[in-house]
Amino acid sequence: MFELIDHVGVAVEDLDSAVSLYEGTLGMPLAHRETVAEQGVEAVLLDVGDCHVELLRPLGPETAVGRFLSNRGEGLHHVAYRVNDIDATLARLRDEGVDLIDTEPRTGIRDSRVAFVRPRAMTGVLTEIVEPAEVR
Amino acid sequence: MFELIDHVGVAVEDLDSAVSLYEGTLGMPLAHRETVAEQGVEAVLLDVGDCHVELLRPLGPETAVGRFLSNRGEGLHHVAYRVNDIDATLARLRDEGVDLIDTEPRTGIRDSRVAFVRPRAMTGVLTEIVEPAEVR
Repeated sequence: MFELIDHVGVAVEDLDSAVSLYEGTLGMPLAHRETVAEQGVEAVLLDVGDCHVELLRPLGPETAVGRFLSNRGEGLHHVAYRVNDIDATLARLRDEGVDLIDTEPRTGIRDSRVAFVRPRAMTGVLTEIVEPAEVR
Repeated sequence: MFELIDHVGVAVEDLDSAVSLYEGTLGMPLAHRETVAEQGVEAVLLDVGDCHVELLRPLGPETAVGRFLSNRGEGLHHVAYRVNDIDATLARLRDEGVDLIDTEPRTGIRDSRVAFVRPRAMTGVLTEIVEPAEVR
């Protein structure tokens, strides 16, 4: 069902400073930068082989990532698993009784289709399912 | 420098129940189970393509993962990046002035060589560098 760890999402206070660390110091190639208004973030993707690190700066304190930063500070925010068919994956998770935040896919970064699963259903881990645009 | 996201580490209270979720419900093949006494955990690796989820149960409340669970509850504990040459990676990180927990590699799960970087040097993310046994 899951092809790969697509990315880890990291909540940061200062996006440019974080990019400087991950791209400059760690040498991860910067792949993409986008404001995803629906998710309340400005996001940067950096390549780690076929996986990514997604740096997330909240667009305001009342966004999900803004509240995460207030409560816990910078750090790991979510993990995303790559799938080839998000509709089939969500159908299977629904059949298994998994508590989904998104019962239908929505548009994510780089025109991907994404859905989130509630942390309490996933050992405390905010979990994202991603079908990249290029599989369609 | 980094080849792939090797794994995400997830701190859990009940390892068997977590394995049942990740293997049974999510369909991730169970690859390995090992007690890593030096790190104070019993760990299970599940395959996600060429990446893994590493479920971590603390061996006691005074271990690092035990304190994490007490403070924050179950959830994402660390991310690990795969490298081909951990000695060269650590030398480069030292040259860049990155604050390392382990200045020399130690033995990790499945006879890998691993080193941890301080979260405060990595936007709050406990970061592990992994050289798998099979690259040697």
